[in-house]
Amino acid sequence: MRSFDVVVVGAGPAGEVAAGRLADAGLEVAIAEEHLVGGECAYYACMPSKALLRPAEILAEVRRVPGAAEAVTGDLSTQAVLDRRDEVIHELDDSGQEPWLENHGIELLRGRARLTGELRLEIAGTEVHARRAVIVATGSGAAVPPIPGLEASRPWTNREATIAERVPERLIVLGGGAVGVELSQAWRSLGAEVVLVEAEPHLLPTEEDFARELVADSLAARGVDLRTGRRAERVARAGDGTVTVTLDDDSSVAGDEVLIAIGRRPRLDGLGIEALGLEPGSPLSTDDHMRVDGAPWLYAIGDVNGRALLTHMGKYQARLASDHILGRPSSIAHGAHGAQAPRVVFTDPQVAAVGHTTASAREAGIDVVSVDVPTSGNAGGSFTGRNAPGTTRVLADRRRGVLVGASFSGSEVAEMLHAATIAIVGEVPIERLAHAVPAFPTRSEIWLRVIDRLAN
Amino acid sequence: MRSFDVVVVGAGPAGEVAAGRLADAGLEVAIAEEHLVGGECAYYACMPSKALLRPAEILAEVRRVPGAAEAVTGDLSTQAVLDRRDEVIHELDDSGQEPWLENHGIELLRGRARLTGELRLEIAGTEVHARRAVIVATGSGAAVPPIPGLEASRPWTNREATIAERVPERLIVLGGGAVGVELSQAWRSLGAEVVLVEAEPHLLPTEEDFARELVADSLAARGVDLRTGRRAERVARAGDGTVTVTLDDDSSVAGDEVLIAIGRRPRLDGLGIEALGLEPGSPLSTDDHMRVDGAPWLYAIGDVNGRALLTHMGKYQARLASDHILGRPSSIAHGAHGAQAPRVVFTDPQVAAVGHTTASAREAGIDVVSVDVPTSGNAGGSFTGRNAPGTTRVLADRRRGVLVGASFSGSEVAEMLHAATIAIVGEVPIERLAHAVPAFPTRSEIWLRVIDRLAN
Repeated sequence: MRSFDVVVVGAGPAGEVAAGRLADAGLEVAIAEEHLVGGECAYYACMPSKALLRPAEILAEVRRVPGAAEAVTGDLSTQAVLDRRDEVIHELDDSGQEPWLENHGIELLRGRARLTGELRLEIAGTEVHARRAVIVATGSGAAVPPIPGLEASRPWTNREATIAERVPERLIVLGGGAVGVELSQAWRSLGAEVVLVEAEPHLLPTEEDFARELVADSLAARGVDLRTGRRAERVARAGDGTVTVTLDDDSSVAGDEVLIAIGRRPRLDGLGIEALGLEPGSPLSTDDHMRVDGAPWLYAIGDVNGRALLTHMGKYQARLASDHILGRPSSIAHGAHGAQAPRVVFTDPQVAAVGHTTASAREAGIDVVSVDVPTSGNAGGSFTGRNAPGTTRVLADRRRGVLVGASFSGSEVAEMLHAATIAIVGEVPIERLAHAVPAFPTRSEIWLRVIDRLAN
Repeated sequence: MRSFDVVVVGAGPAGEVAAGRLADAGLEVAIAEEHLVGGECAYYACMPSKALLRPAEILAEVRRVPGAAEAVTGDLSTQAVLDRRDEVIHELDDSGQEPWLENHGIELLRGRARLTGELRLEIAGTEVHARRAVIVATGSGAAVPPIPGLEASRPWTNREATIAERVPERLIVLGGGAVGVELSQAWRSLGAEVVLVEAEPHLLPTEEDFARELVADSLAARGVDLRTGRRAERVARAGDGTVTVTLDDDSSVAGDEVLIAIGRRPRLDGLGIEALGLEPGSPLSTDDHMRVDGAPWLYAIGDVNGRALLTHMGKYQARLASDHILGRPSSIAHGAHGAQAPRVVFTDPQVAAVGHTTASAREAGIDVVSVDVPTSGNAGGSFTGRNAPGTTRVLADRRRGVLVGASFSGSEVAEMLHAATIAIVGEVPIERLAHAVPAFPTRSEIWLRVIDRLAN
């Protein structure tokens, strides 16, 4: 039997941050991983999708800048894009992560972990005891909806869709959330014919109207065939490899691959949580310290707790959980978490948002003042993202005089988000924000008009 | 005689913001301008320099992105860069500004203004009375240092250097502040041979060591001949047009043009401030409402008051002054102004800073904790600014537990600045900043390491 202070199950970003933080504080830490150290994000999600998207984005921008545009005579090199993607995912080899674990004194236990009792696990056949805590950070996998014929048609999930070695001629994407829109745009930019099917009337249903319309318009303009408000009723793969998806209006679409991007399922199968009276199909419910309800020795961080399926929020939760284990004050105290977490859709145009949307603020009963400005409608916007459409909306709580939400849409807005996150989480009074002067000529000058209108 | 509630002298960015704000509040406002409505910034400074710099910057970035880099087979088109610059400065035609003035009901008085007494001016021969206040927003011009032979050699100032219709073969730049380094890089990128002379031992002397070294290295790598710690002793233009600058080590450099970028002089000549007992060579000293000391009816905003020679700070001061005239509470209350104002040097790599530097914090007697991180040393940096060098430093006040300074250097960091500005001006406690989560994978994740190290 092996014994550690803390055993972390799952070596994705959340698990790694927790393990690193605990080990750096002097604890004896093991991390169990049955697949790749680095996790879904590094190999099959955030990282490869950005590698596929970035080249088209930057090429669009350089074409907007006279003087530089003339230097661009060719087009994207598909092979170079795929090669760079392979470099980003280290060709699915995680040995590059091992020195990091060694440097932090974290023991890597390769294999599947199963909880066998309080603070006890079996990992790859070995009994393991955790003296202080077990942290579950197993993440999530693509949910496979019960559409007749879907599973038998060998669908792509985010995994196959991010690591594919060649561009499919015809790709059908089921689901118009962040994963669906990003991968639709990525493969379309590399030449695939893409049909995107979304059951809701709009893509990105939880974002602001203007943001989802912008992304829809951009996808349509690039030739993605959008089928919103349509549900896939059955799927079949023929002998020649063609996949046919029949929609609820009896129309059908044919493709070479079908990608499921309809939601995520926590990775809990085989972990033995049934013994704790928990259900593997549902996320692990946690308190504000990330402790699993009813099991104070067990923490759940990242996608597996269902709070916010975002790498950065998993890493944030890892800090909360590890600090709590270390006896430091640590709790979700205020600010942007859950559905209000900071979030970026890396399409071109991008959508970056934090806190409430107009709809969620209304649901929460907040009396908001809302200000819209064009994202590139200032001097900075004449140099960056020029003529690219996009709107920024900031929401303030009229009663409290602080910001409660911000949504940016437009070319490369991702780095503009953190200013809003600090303003919202920091609860900086609007009258004080009026003294935070954005530099000229940056696009951050959108804040001038926003604050001016909120302050008066 | 004409009469208005407020007369603004100078229609640059500061004057326009003040006039617009006062007119929108219902006041009768006139704005006097002897040259171009829009000001130095729009025609001869920030705007054309950015137009000259942006194409090379974006071309460098696209070359760092495999898959997109392959599409770039040519080089900058100098003519297209110059044409775009002409478009940005509207070919020095300010008629495009007139509808804005008309829409706000501001009367434009073309011509030079001279103060003739309290609340009284003469503008282009007409007597004008201001019922409530006069705002001086005449800006600054390049200071011409008393170097023998300089004035006779017909030197360029920022004006000639930003609007030049052709690339000089050999350009000598005197002064390695923001103007000097930006224009050195701009013209070098378009093919000029550039020699940059700076009397101080370093370029950008008021910025952090690592930032000024980065800019110096970048200029040197592009072939700019740097002569730091050298003073120009005399200048002569020969009959064939060649300008020779003799340095204090008796070496000399020859060029086709010599640009003076050694400082600014407030534009006060002919304004009649001598009648108020003031000296035209010095900036107008103001209180926290931007009122000129000893003349409560007279406000000075923008470069002319010498507080922070930056367009955005002029616009900020315009808000303070106009709000004060309107009887709204308005004062520099806290945060980043003067030398601590947010500032960006738009070279590639850029330098963006706000608040204290290490040196100014030490001088101010603040016990600071300082954290350095590589600007592109995270997942976001593998997609944007990849392999581009750069450091970010954040300074916290150990006693107060808030940030007091931040300096970003690296590729395209300008939009990352405002997050720091809000944190500093908002005085957001570091322990709360730990809950403001930057999105993955953005370069804003540099905040994770910064806050982690400051919080512990």
